[in-house]
Amino acid sequence: MHEFELIARLTKALPTNESVVTGAGDDCAVLDLGVPEKLILFKTDAVVEGIHFTRATPPAKIGRKALARGLSDIAAMAGTPTAALVTVALPPDFDAEFVAQIYDGLNALAEKHAVAIVGGETTTNPERILISIALLGTVPRGQPVLRAGAKIGDAIFVTGELGGSLAGKHLDFEPRLAEARWLTEHFAIHALMDLSDGLGGDLRQILNASQVGAEILKSALPISRAAKLAARGNSAAKPPVMAALTDGEDFELLFTVASNDAVKLLDAWRAVFPKLKLSCIGKIVAGSGIVLRDRHGSHPFNAGGYEHFG
Amino acid sequence: MHEFELIARLTKALPTNESVVTGAGDDCAVLDLGVPEKLILFKTDAVVEGIHFTRATPPAKIGRKALARGLSDIAAMAGTPTAALVTVALPPDFDAEFVAQIYDGLNALAEKHAVAIVGGETTTNPERILISIALLGTVPRGQPVLRAGAKIGDAIFVTGELGGSLAGKHLDFEPRLAEARWLTEHFAIHALMDLSDGLGGDLRQILNASQVGAEILKSALPISRAAKLAARGNSAAKPPVMAALTDGEDFELLFTVASNDAVKLLDAWRAVFPKLKLSCIGKIVAGSGIVLRDRHGSHPFNAGGYEHFG
Repeated sequence: MHEFELIARLTKALPTNESVVTGAGDDCAVLDLGVPEKLILFKTDAVVEGIHFTRATPPAKIGRKALARGLSDIAAMAGTPTAALVTVALPPDFDAEFVAQIYDGLNALAEKHAVAIVGGETTTNPERILISIALLGTVPRGQPVLRAGAKIGDAIFVTGELGGSLAGKHLDFEPRLAEARWLTEHFAIHALMDLSDGLGGDLRQILNASQVGAEILKSALPISRAAKLAARGNSAAKPPVMAALTDGEDFELLFTVASNDAVKLLDAWRAVFPKLKLSCIGKIVAGSGIVLRDRHGSHPFNAGGYEHFG
Repeated sequence: MHEFELIARLTKALPTNESVVTGAGDDCAVLDLGVPEKLILFKTDAVVEGIHFTRATPPAKIGRKALARGLSDIAAMAGTPTAALVTVALPPDFDAEFVAQIYDGLNALAEKHAVAIVGGETTTNPERILISIALLGTVPRGQPVLRAGAKIGDAIFVTGELGGSLAGKHLDFEPRLAEARWLTEHFAIHALMDLSDGLGGDLRQILNASQVGAEILKSALPISRAAKLAARGNSAAKPPVMAALTDGEDFELLFTVASNDAVKLLDAWRAVFPKLKLSCIGKIVAGSGIVLRDRHGSHPFNAGGYEHFG
C-alpha cells in the first residue's frame, strides 16, 4: 500500500460525531462543543531528535520549537491558543536538567501567547527524544478560514521570507498568531494555512482543497537571506528560488484574498506590521496545479512537498 | 536532579491562564472554555513499543490499547469523551497495512464510545513505534471528581479484579466510562481515579492529594485469575496479593464515598452492572500512607507505584 493510499484509507474511515465541524485534513480540527460564540481548535504536533532537531540543539530551543509549530497551526486557522499538553519521550538515562531546559523554552513561548500548560507526561523512548504537543484553541464562530476557500482571480500572499529555515529560523520563528487574526478581522480571507512543508507543496494543498490552480510570479517570491547565502559559491546547493519553493519549516502564512482587496490589504498591513514583509506572489487561476512565470515564459511546477495525514 | 525534584520544578513553573480549572496533576486537565453547562477535559497518553506492547502484538490491539488508556483517564473524571487526535511515530520502512490495522482497532473502540477521530499525524521514530493520543471530553459543571476529595471515614472501592493485567487484559480492558458517570450521577463520590500504575501507588495519589491515610483489608482485595495463575507453581512470581497491589495497567476505577452510602451503593451497583465486580477494600483514615490489615495485624505498605508528571 502506497502512503497516499494509506492516508486515503485512514481518513475515509474515521469515526465522527455531531461535534465535528472540520475533521482531519486542515491545519487544525474544528469542533463545536457548545461555546456560544466560539468553535474549538484541536491540534497535535510532534518533533523528533535527528529529524526536527539534534542532540546538539540547545534544549530551550527544542522546547520552544515544539510549541511554536503547534501555535503556527492555530495561526493557520486565525485562532487563539488556550492550553497545551506536553508529552516528552526520552531515553531512560536522560539528564533532568536537559528536560527542565526544554520546558523553560516551551514555557517562555507559552507565556508570551498566554497559553496554559496543563500537564502531559514523560515516557520512555530509548533511542531518541520525541516531544508531542497537543493544543486547544478557539476561533470565533462563523466559517473558520480553511484551505478550501480559494477562488479564481484571488491574489496569493505570503508573510516573511521563504527558504533556508534549517539554517536557524526553524528554532526561532514567530508563530503568526496576531497577524492571522488581524487578517481575518479586517479582510475576507478566502483560504489560509501556514507553510510547514515548503511553499510548492503547501500551496498545492490549498489548490487541491479548492479545486483551482495557481500562477506564481518567480520574481515576486520573497527569498530569505539564508537561502541566498546557502547558494552562494556552492553549485551543489539549491538555487535560491527553488529553496523558497521547496524548503520546509518556513512557518509563514499563505493566504488568498479577492484581487479587489489586494492593494488595500497591502497598504493596511504595512501600517500595522511594518517589520514583517508581506508579498503578493501570484494569483489563483482555473485548472489545477502550479504554473511558474518568469521573463522566459510559464511552465508547470511539480517539485516539492509531501502529504501528511491530518 | 532526581525525577521527583524535576517533576516538582516543572509543575511549579507552568504557565496558566483564566481557562484553567485543574492543571497538571489529576487524571485530566479541566478547562472552562465557556460551554454553558460543561467543563472541558483534556488529556494525552502515549504507548511505546517494547514498553506497552511488542512488535508481536496484533496491531489492532495496539491501536485499541492506545485509545483505551486515554478513555480510562476520561472515565477517571466521570467525563464523556468527544474527540481524539492520533500521533503515530514509526520507522520509515513501516508496513502500511500494519498502520491501517492499528487504526482499525482504534476506530472500533472510538465508534463504540462515540469518539470522533479528527486527525493527527504520522511521523518518524526510526527504532520503534510510538502512539500518542490526545483526547477532548466534557464533564458537567460543578465540582468535577478529583483525587483530592477523600475524607476520613470514607469507604474505598475498586471495580473489577486487580493484578496480572500484562498477561492479556492490558490489551482488552474496557474503559469504565459508563460506570464512572453512573457513580457520579447517583452518589456523592468524594475521590475518583483510574488504576494505571498499581493500586498501592495510585491510592497513594488520592491519599497525598487529600492529606489522609488508608487502611486496606487484605482479604477484601479482588485478585484476578491471571495474578493467581502466575503465582501457581512459580515461587519466583509475586504473591497474588502483591500483584493486586503493585501490578500496573488494571484500568479499573478506584473511588471513595461516605461510609453511610457504601451499602446502598453496592446494592444499586449490582442491579445496574451485574457483570462487573465492585469491592469495598478498606477505609480512609487520619494520617498518611497505606496500612494493610490481615488476621495477623496491621503493617504499613510502602511498595509499588511511581510518579508521573501530569
